[in-house]
Amino acid sequence: MKYDYLIIGAGFAGAVYARQAADKDLKVLLIDKRNHVGGNAYDSFDEDGVLIHNYGPHIFHTNNKEVWDFLSRFTQWHYYQHWVLTSVEGQLLPMPINVNTINKLYGTQYNAFNIHEFYESKRNKTIGEIKNSEDFILSQIGEHLYEKFFKNYTKKQWGVYPDELDKSVIARIPIRHNFDPRYFSDKYQAMPLHGYTKMFESILDSKNIDVRLGVSMQNLDADISYEKIVYTGKLDEYFNYKHGNLPYRSLRFEFENLEQEKYQEAPVVNYPNDYDFTRITEYKQLTGQKSFNTTISREYSMDDGEPYYPIPNDKSAQIVEKYALEVAQLKNVYFLGRLAEYKYYNMDAVVASAINKFKEVEES
Amino acid sequence: MKYDYLIIGAGFAGAVYARQAADKDLKVLLIDKRNHVGGNAYDSFDEDGVLIHNYGPHIFHTNNKEVWDFLSRFTQWHYYQHWVLTSVEGQLLPMPINVNTINKLYGTQYNAFNIHEFYESKRNKTIGEIKNSEDFILSQIGEHLYEKFFKNYTKKQWGVYPDELDKSVIARIPIRHNFDPRYFSDKYQAMPLHGYTKMFESILDSKNIDVRLGVSMQNLDADISYEKIVYTGKLDEYFNYKHGNLPYRSLRFEFENLEQEKYQEAPVVNYPNDYDFTRITEYKQLTGQKSFNTTISREYSMDDGEPYYPIPNDKSAQIVEKYALEVAQLKNVYFLGRLAEYKYYNMDAVVASAINKFKEVEES
Repeated sequence: MKYDYLIIGAGFAGAVYARQAADKDLKVLLIDKRNHVGGNAYDSFDEDGVLIHNYGPHIFHTNNKEVWDFLSRFTQWHYYQHWVLTSVEGQLLPMPINVNTINKLYGTQYNAFNIHEFYESKRNKTIGEIKNSEDFILSQIGEHLYEKFFKNYTKKQWGVYPDELDKSVIARIPIRHNFDPRYFSDKYQAMPLHGYTKMFESILDSKNIDVRLGVSMQNLDADISYEKIVYTGKLDEYFNYKHGNLPYRSLRFEFENLEQEKYQEAPVVNYPNDYDFTRITEYKQLTGQKSFNTTISREYSMDDGEPYYPIPNDKSAQIVEKYALEVAQLKNVYFLGRLAEYKYYNMDAVVASAINKFKEVEES
Repeated sequence: MKYDYLIIGAGFAGAVYARQAADKDLKVLLIDKRNHVGGNAYDSFDEDGVLIHNYGPHIFHTNNKEVWDFLSRFTQWHYYQHWVLTSVEGQLLPMPINVNTINKLYGTQYNAFNIHEFYESKRNKTIGEIKNSEDFILSQIGEHLYEKFFKNYTKKQWGVYPDELDKSVIARIPIRHNFDPRYFSDKYQAMPLHGYTKMFESILDSKNIDVRLGVSMQNLDADISYEKIVYTGKLDEYFNYKHGNLPYRSLRFEFENLEQEKYQEAPVVNYPNDYDFTRITEYKQLTGQKSFNTTISREYSMDDGEPYYPIPNDKSAQIVEKYALEVAQLKNVYFLGRLAEYKYYNMDAVVASAINKFKEVEES
């Protein structure tokens, strides 16, 4: 069998690249060592009939119209705007912090016109250079909010306190001066109406794409040939870890089905200070599914296991640089996505990256 | 029969010690004079099918991860955070006192930033040395809140007014400067998902543990031998009361089943000033059980009966000291738990004590 492309990994990076190639009548063999498509965005119905995200909650949001239009070819949408509450001092409070968070936590009555006075009165003005995530938050909102909302949550999620974490990690989370209760403020926010897995099946539904699941590069048949490779697996794995292992945070989910229509006040509730889990997700509130029972997951962050999040710091950056030099010397092999580029990409950024990479490779 | 350990008492102290010994392949005979395991944490389904705590409400909470992880080996959890309302002047108000308690009681609008002005204006500033629980409360919040929330409740619960009670007793209850509605603020708060009794059965489910119920030390078979004793019963009883009786408060519960789904606004409602009972507990609100009926208990405090609470004061301390000298002379007999150590331990502190005692005895 002769293909134009061997694509390794059926997550967003691999699937979107594959579809574009297929649309140009290029022949693609797409493999994944897992027995399903979708990568970590894979969803499925559990044994109680509730649609869950097997690798934890995935909420699609983007400001990129090209990405939105591309995915809209393959799915209808459930127009869901994500929101999150955080359990602090026994109250469930809006996250990211907005004016209501402040007023509920402290019993104040700030509004959008004077909330800046509050932040100004609390923020640590003595911090000069922002060296890490702790500096970043303290210089914006001060000690108490930092302790209650960020310090322990970061430790749970990343295994280190914010003073050991690059400032970019926590800078992703805004501090709001208005009452916007949404977690994201992107123009396009939605969930695939019939789930991520169905969307992936539709993306890959082309006569030019052969999908083989449960297959690694190592055990491909010898009679298969291809012109180019798109690799979306772990960067260090491709090179047999010759320059060292890249660190990842992993997650573990405890799923529980409950004989009740609704479990919690919000789709996601964060637990920065209580228990060992970081958050509880109630999937029906994300997907819009109606049923008399509900499934939740408690989420634990770990050092080991399936890779979820790259850990951006000086040490990992040095290792990435060594691998990047190797990548630059390869011909007709393209590295794409969160694992292969070792970047903390959201889903839409991966789609954008796949679209751009295809243009770069095929249209230049 | 030859055992490494005879353990007397199948409550938290005895069961946790037994399990650790069993895990090291030591043989344990565990006896309890009651006909059930679990000590005062024992729970059971009443004749109307509602899970009740036969010896009154037990809410598990701890900041000790070692304790939490140990118990988590033997039970799943119902993630319940305890909260209590107090009936004062015909209103149900949050207890411990927080900013909302003040605002509801007095119709004020204090917030977390100025509530200290309220406490400061009310507190008794003339009290020098804090000699007892009354001094402690008066010096923090003044006469009116003391009278309404603490004075009569203490008399009901302890049989004496706060001026006769060590300050440590009431210092367990915080006065909050925020809106935290929870009774406890520990990191881990939960109820064993299937109840305490099931958890104890799981702890004791080992081939190395023989459990005999309805059995006292005195009526053990003569052919039983053991190397060491762990004693978790009453300290004074072990020595036949030779240095006098240690005082205990006891409790009496009036259980009532009602043909309604829910009885009261909160899992526990305190009645400091009305009636003779101290509080009403609605068990379903603790355990999360779903049913069309509900069971409550009205709780009365008494001088006599099964021992519940040690009474820490100068007199009891003197008696304890005499027994402690006897204990120090014993070899291979270890005293553990609320009754044997005569300490007002919470459940988690007993578990921690049993874990540490085992390490001390077997690993030193």
